[in-house]
Amino acid sequence: MDLTAREIDIATPTPTVILHTADAEELGAHSLDRIRIKRDGRTYTGIVETTTELVEQGGLAVTSRLGHVTGPVTVSLAPKPRSVAHIRAKLEDHELERGDIQEIVHDIDRYRLNDVELGAYVSAIQANGLSHEETRHLTEAMTAAGQRIEWSQDVIADKHSIGGVAGNRVTPIIVPIVAAAGVTIPKTSSRAITSPAGTADTMAVFCEVAFTTEEMRDIVEETNGCVVWGGSVDLSPVDDKIIRAENPLSVDPPGQIIASVLSKKKSAGSNHVIIDIPYGENAKVTSLVAARELAEDFRLVAEHLDLEIACTITRGGQPIGEGIGPVLEARDVLAVLDGGGPLELRLKSIRLADILFDLCDVDADAAELLDSGAALSKFREIVAAQGGDPDVERDDLRPGGHRHVVTAGRDGVVMTVQNRYISEVARRAGAPRDPGAGIRLHCREDDDVAADDELFTIYAEKRSKLTEAVDYHDEVEAVRIGDPDEALIERR
Amino acid sequence: MDLTAREIDIATPTPTVILHTADAEELGAHSLDRIRIKRDGRTYTGIVETTTELVEQGGLAVTSRLGHVTGPVTVSLAPKPRSVAHIRAKLEDHELERGDIQEIVHDIDRYRLNDVELGAYVSAIQANGLSHEETRHLTEAMTAAGQRIEWSQDVIADKHSIGGVAGNRVTPIIVPIVAAAGVTIPKTSSRAITSPAGTADTMAVFCEVAFTTEEMRDIVEETNGCVVWGGSVDLSPVDDKIIRAENPLSVDPPGQIIASVLSKKKSAGSNHVIIDIPYGENAKVTSLVAARELAEDFRLVAEHLDLEIACTITRGGQPIGEGIGPVLEARDVLAVLDGGGPLELRLKSIRLADILFDLCDVDADAAELLDSGAALSKFREIVAAQGGDPDVERDDLRPGGHRHVVTAGRDGVVMTVQNRYISEVARRAGAPRDPGAGIRLHCREDDDVAADDELFTIYAEKRSKLTEAVDYHDEVEAVRIGDPDEALIERR
Repeated sequence: MDLTAREIDIATPTPTVILHTADAEELGAHSLDRIRIKRDGRTYTGIVETTTELVEQGGLAVTSRLGHVTGPVTVSLAPKPRSVAHIRAKLEDHELERGDIQEIVHDIDRYRLNDVELGAYVSAIQANGLSHEETRHLTEAMTAAGQRIEWSQDVIADKHSIGGVAGNRVTPIIVPIVAAAGVTIPKTSSRAITSPAGTADTMAVFCEVAFTTEEMRDIVEETNGCVVWGGSVDLSPVDDKIIRAENPLSVDPPGQIIASVLSKKKSAGSNHVIIDIPYGENAKVTSLVAARELAEDFRLVAEHLDLEIACTITRGGQPIGEGIGPVLEARDVLAVLDGGGPLELRLKSIRLADILFDLCDVDADAAELLDSGAALSKFREIVAAQGGDPDVERDDLRPGGHRHVVTAGRDGVVMTVQNRYISEVARRAGAPRDPGAGIRLHCREDDDVAADDELFTIYAEKRSKLTEAVDYHDEVEAVRIGDPDEALIERR
Repeated sequence: MDLTAREIDIATPTPTVILHTADAEELGAHSLDRIRIKRDGRTYTGIVETTTELVEQGGLAVTSRLGHVTGPVTVSLAPKPRSVAHIRAKLEDHELERGDIQEIVHDIDRYRLNDVELGAYVSAIQANGLSHEETRHLTEAMTAAGQRIEWSQDVIADKHSIGGVAGNRVTPIIVPIVAAAGVTIPKTSSRAITSPAGTADTMAVFCEVAFTTEEMRDIVEETNGCVVWGGSVDLSPVDDKIIRAENPLSVDPPGQIIASVLSKKKSAGSNHVIIDIPYGENAKVTSLVAARELAEDFRLVAEHLDLEIACTITRGGQPIGEGIGPVLEARDVLAVLDGGGPLELRLKSIRLADILFDLCDVDADAAELLDSGAALSKFREIVAAQGGDPDVERDDLRPGGHRHVVTAGRDGVVMTVQNRYISEVARRAGAPRDPGAGIRLHCREDDDVAADDELFTIYAEKRSKLTEAVDYHDEVEAVRIGDPDEALIERR
């Protein structure tokens, strides 16, 4: 069927095309079906929606992803991609072959799967899991879908945290420690999805974080390290497309986590990787048993991928640093690099960096690199290379001007500091979109407090956001005070 | 956030709304998230896509499903529906409670799930199945979501076929047989999705098929029976919404089939139901073992739903009638009602009708009702009640004028008549959109044929469609001729 295509500015993540209902019927195409679109000898795939008014008969509206495919085109109904049959096989708990997994990854990468099929892919992995062999094939297929950085150095260090813990901003501390020891560490990080700040959001307080793969390489060649946003470099680009389908379902199956993490590391050219697995209530991993299993799976998959890895299992029940939100976390980072800062954040950074040194067989001492100021100098060097101000001081980093202090209200002991509610209060206050918004914690679990002791301060850039955050906190009681001799958390 | 909503004519099946990227970021809403839209004290739920041009900042484009929600609105980010947690639980193979299933069905009915979540629902059922208890809850929840017809008669008969077999047009024959015996049979049928004709498409050759539930009731009160399109009456409307997500994945999990079928029957007020389960290569059910299991599951679920059911397992390896496509099947139907017609179609209709009589404890004889002309009179009565011409004769029903006869090409025996390819040839010829398009089979499996014997005729209303169908047939060889003593189907 010959149609005339024009662009319509809707940024659907999938290559949606809109057909007049009569043309769709003529083609035998239903909502969510795929059509092949030929123009100038090239073929594109579109996913169908229908209309009776927005597009006239004989017309075809193409959304942003296919925005360049305009003018006269020839369309036909496309068969289902073979990868859908592989997804169905996985739903029925069959083991997938290397080629099957390559087809699935290829079709996800090319946006050939519609949202129902993507949901089924994630569901199949969640329901039936992936064997170590399948996980390895998935890692390799995801790595192959993007760019890959080659380095002249033999040892390339890297670090990843499974996440879910507020204020766990060890990366901008570990990277300069490791780089200061002369070890190459090309670190990519994420922006917040459901948290009040990702590492990339915090780093963005100091400097640029969006770079191409080539720019990232230049920064690392110059300084040994970087902390850039993973979304701008083209390393394992399929990952984001899969995460988009995991988010609505709030699932994060272990095999997929491992393939996502390791494919990013392989793509960055890294070969010595430390994986931090914090566990605790409301963290991504909720028990020590599950953390140990995940660590073992990581180890077994990495064995066949020429990756040296070390997994650390750490406590993730409560926030690590004091600040939560981009600016407040950036202040903690600078404080630790300056030899002070929140103790938990300092200790965890030192411990992980030392394990990474050990893995890389490098003779260096993280505490010494911190206390000598070498790590701070290296950090300023990296900030400068990423286009930021190398002379930034803590007082230059201003949290939001609207503040609310939450006090204990009674004498007692801090029973729980809930990651999840603390994060949500910070989000309501405007983080990460308003970088100065967030929370500064003045207590940790088991602290003794008096009635008028301050538990935490909420910061916001907008008054209305502060109100929203305070109202929410009143509802959920993110920090709970109890009697010192009370065994009970709550009575319901 | 206050926005001004306007309608945009895109007929997405889900209630998609399009926000400017900046407003979406401000709300913290990503693609596929839900927002609450308040207008005049009422609240609606929309599923988010973003744009930078189609909608200005401060604006909100609502697609057809929410087309009435225009003007000033207040929007906020909506939490994930609780049903998503139930779907996740099912993915992890937990048994769902009655209330969980009710929430899922309610949210699907209200279009509160996005396509990724719908895909996960179908996947969870496919991967982990439904217990008989879950299937019963699902049937009841699906029934409750739509209208329900009450009858004054005690015995209400009904019939369903699991499908997948070409030319299996027994319904327009069985309904008048049963109605002629004085038994009420309010039959709803589907239009074709991937086949060349559904029962509703064939019946539409004779009369109207789109009626409201009230109109359907009136027709049945007048004639004892009807054959109307299930898509126009509001009986178990959730079914179509689930089927939309099953289609892309080509899955049809048994528990979902049972709930779909039985909820339609419960909604129609039926209490004596015959379920035909044809099995064979390319039919929906592919083995005798699977057919028996499905029959047993039907029986166990129906037991707790006050439904008397009988399941028949029939052969579905090759087409039943001679005609495939709306007009060609309508001609077969009229021929059988007239006492002649394709033998397989006549015998199957009689057998199923007699079993239904037995189930209803009615003393009647299907063959006698056919041969006496009582069924034909009843059929004409129903056609008239549905607004068609009661005096229609076979010659009034004209298949497409463009024809192509396929001959055997060699002496031999008919090895296979492939349902799936025969159906696809008929679809390429234009069925069901062009009612006169389709196929008339002149052979059945195991027939001896000579080289110039006609195997089947392809009919089309448009020459281009005929060419397309013939080309496709040359590729797939829908009917295969072999040597009489040949054990082999194919050598590869």
